Amino acid sequence: MTSPVIPADLAAWCSRNDARAQDELFAFLRIPSVSAKSEHQSDCAAAAAFVADALTTIGFDAEIVATDGHPIVVGEWRKAGPDAPTLLIYGHYDVQPAEPLELWTSPAFEPTIRDGRIYARGSVDDKGQLYLHIKALEAHLVVRGTLPVNVIVIAEGEEEVGSVNLEQFLEREQQRLRCDAVVISDSCMFAPGIPSILSSLRGMAYVQIDVRGAKGDLHSGMYGGAVVNPAMALARILATMHDANGRVAIDGFYDKVLPFPEAVRAGMRALPHSDAELMHEVGVAALGGEPGYTTLERLWTRPTCEVNGLLSGYTGEGAKTVLPAVSMAKVSFRLVPDQDPDQIVELVRRHVARVTPAGVTASVTAMHGGRPWRADLKGPIIEAGKRALTAAFGREPVITGEGGSIPVVGDFERILGAPVLLMGFGLPGENAHAPNEWISVENYRLGIRAAATLIDEFARAR
Amino acid sequence: MTSPVIPADLAAWCSRNDARAQDELFAFLRIPSVSAKSEHQSDCAAAAAFVADALTTIGFDAEIVATDGHPIVVGEWRKAGPDAPTLLIYGHYDVQPAEPLELWTSPAFEPTIRDGRIYARGSVDDKGQLYLHIKALEAHLVVRGTLPVNVIVIAEGEEEVGSVNLEQFLEREQQRLRCDAVVISDSCMFAPGIPSILSSLRGMAYVQIDVRGAKGDLHSGMYGGAVVNPAMALARILATMHDANGRVAIDGFYDKVLPFPEAVRAGMRALPHSDAELMHEVGVAALGGEPGYTTLERLWTRPTCEVNGLLSGYTGEGAKTVLPAVSMAKVSFRLVPDQDPDQIVELVRRHVARVTPAGVTASVTAMHGGRPWRADLKGPIIEAGKRALTAAFGREPVITGEGGSIPVVGDFERILGAPVLLMGFGLPGENAHAPNEWISVENYRLGIRAAATLIDEFARAR
Repeated sequence: MTSPVIPADLAAWCSRNDARAQDELFAFLRIPSVSAKSEHQSDCAAAAAFVADALTTIGFDAEIVATDGHPIVVGEWRKAGPDAPTLLIYGHYDVQPAEPLELWTSPAFEPTIRDGRIYARGSVDDKGQLYLHIKALEAHLVVRGTLPVNVIVIAEGEEEVGSVNLEQFLEREQQRLRCDAVVISDSCMFAPGIPSILSSLRGMAYVQIDVRGAKGDLHSGMYGGAVVNPAMALARILATMHDANGRVAIDGFYDKVLPFPEAVRAGMRALPHSDAELMHEVGVAALGGEPGYTTLERLWTRPTCEVNGLLSGYTGEGAKTVLPAVSMAKVSFRLVPDQDPDQIVELVRRHVARVTPAGVTASVTAMHGGRPWRADLKGPIIEAGKRALTAAFGREPVITGEGGSIPVVGDFERILGAPVLLMGFGLPGENAHAPNEWISVENYRLGIRAAATLIDEFARAR
Repeated sequence: MTSPVIPADLAAWCSRNDARAQDELFAFLRIPSVSAKSEHQSDCAAAAAFVADALTTIGFDAEIVATDGHPIVVGEWRKAGPDAPTLLIYGHYDVQPAEPLELWTSPAFEPTIRDGRIYARGSVDDKGQLYLHIKALEAHLVVRGTLPVNVIVIAEGEEEVGSVNLEQFLEREQQRLRCDAVVISDSCMFAPGIPSILSSLRGMAYVQIDVRGAKGDLHSGMYGGAVVNPAMALARILATMHDANGRVAIDGFYDKVLPFPEAVRAGMRALPHSDAELMHEVGVAALGGEPGYTTLERLWTRPTCEVNGLLSGYTGEGAKTVLPAVSMAKVSFRLVPDQDPDQIVELVRRHVARVTPAGVTASVTAMHGGRPWRADLKGPIIEAGKRALTAAFGREPVITGEGGSIPVVGDFERILGAPVLLMGFGLPGENAHAPNEWISVENYRLGIRAAATLIDEFARAR
């Protein structure tokens, strides 16, 4: 296989148009399209129109599809013909709220360059990473007048509020959206200069455990020592969820866990990760977790059990000698393929029932769940992604994982039946949901080149 | 020893004066002397004056001693001479707030008789139990013109707000208050018709445990599985505090525990207690606690470890995937002789340090403590109390314990060096700190007779 390069014609166009691509992104970033706030509804509509216009300008058919919330923009270019493959590019034009505003060094909706970074709300999440694809498509259409594949662009406006209308849209438009691969740029590179393909996302099973004892709070002097304490019972229940080594000790919890391929694990172990830096970043003197795995493996490839909240009895200042009637814990489990959220909740329910002491009752309520996801890491779109990133960044991408969830990824794969490539251009510390969000100027530029190259490589790989 | 009886002259006086003794108590109960509320300051002063007047009327010298809070009434009758013993009677004229008022069947400060009970705030805690002693003293002074012992009456007005000025007063007036015994009626009988001497009070060591992990809350997806979770760590720390059988598992916790005399334990085991009734009362399907003891022994004679409060992370509605930075538990230990609150806190500190996992830190903050207390159950005042109660109720008193604390008891014993008799006339379900507080009409009357008989028996026993 030849060493991949950015096609010269596209590279030349990119160089001539970097400044304009940045100016246009700035205009996009100035629209405060905060999906969570009703007062920004017209701004969300304006951002949708901006994307539709940008697509129309480069030669796409664009439609703004109304939903019960913010609209979904669908751009289509199908002139490659029915025998050519179809690539679907997904991104979102909505952004997180900018508050607290006083913590921004420059205004959230006035893009500002400092130290090679474009600071603005939405710069990296996800306007910059969406718009770089549109510029890549423009490169093809301007330089060559055509694209070697059919392309569908979907830009939604509700990603930051849970993509509440996307799944239904995908199901309704399943025929129209048929495609051979999906590419999403809404994630991070492992480190500056290290292009990355995100190959796995953890799923989630979130439960609330409520322990009930006496029918009301009791005086701990008058009843303590004979009436079972629901707060202590809860602590004991939670303590049974891990063994002494930090492994989850719920019967059957690991039964469905697929081992990650040794090559992927080896790749992760080879990544330049420093536990000391992570400890410094979060401010702890030691890390913990399941034995037998590196930190990155624990975060990316292993399931967890975490307490997210605890509440019982008296929590104010000073001392109150109450024997609480109830106690509550929020507990979530990060899942990996092929763990199933519903099955995990059922295992937790059985476990809690088994370890709850007499004298109290415990209930387990499922709060929400999401399936884990793992890329196949084979096939045309992955190969194309690897080559495109290698061409743009001058080194092969690493394969990373992500401890959190991006629920839409599973939706695309399940509903459209197409493999998903997660090719992100963010960087650690990008403040995606915090003040002073930024995208690297260089990554935005290299992202355009990678996305442009991806089109050619995908056409060729197939 | 002859079977004890109420002296006939005193009994006759009591019969003639029961109606008046009740009327006077009603007047006392109408004064809303709520010590916790500043708007009732003049009511507290009025209640103090009421007590002082009642003492003066029967022939005592009475003084109202100002404090930084509500005044302390001191009544003295010393005409028995320097060779006669001195008995100190302690009670309090202040009452708990009456709120929530709408739950009272009759007004809190308008005493009302229903079903043989006097309903009013303060009826049993402690105005009725204080005033019955004053009527008993009156019986002696009216019928015989004298008392066989010197008597000091102390009525404080801050018992319901922690007796904040009493200890200092006792220390300052130590010489003047020298006495041979202290009698306090501010507790409960085991059951109707069963007179009781309260022989032990549990002490208390109350701590707050704070567990700290990362310097801020983290995303449980991005860090979960590698950064130690302070909420789970807290649960695991708390779970180590008992063994699987419910015994406190803190090194050295039981070292100072004195076994209760077998006779006292046998007496407790013989009391007509029903676990089924207790379970029904509090609404649980099973009781728990330390093995090897009955429920009453657990409540009265054994130390405990209870979680009084838990707080960490997200506790609102729904799900939030936070890996909390901190977690907090309020934990209290009921203590029995000779456990020392400060030593117990130190043992807890050591235990927590030993079991806290790497990756988090835990601190133990002492909140408040109180020493346990146990009566000697020998000596003149105990013998006199037993005979007086037998005379008044027609059966020997049982020896009970109390799971809670009455801190002033230890203060009297320590500062004045005199044994304390706890001879209470309340009953289970008396609603001492709740709406619809009551004292049994019969117990108020028998209480006067028992208190009057106690004087003679104490003079004779010594």
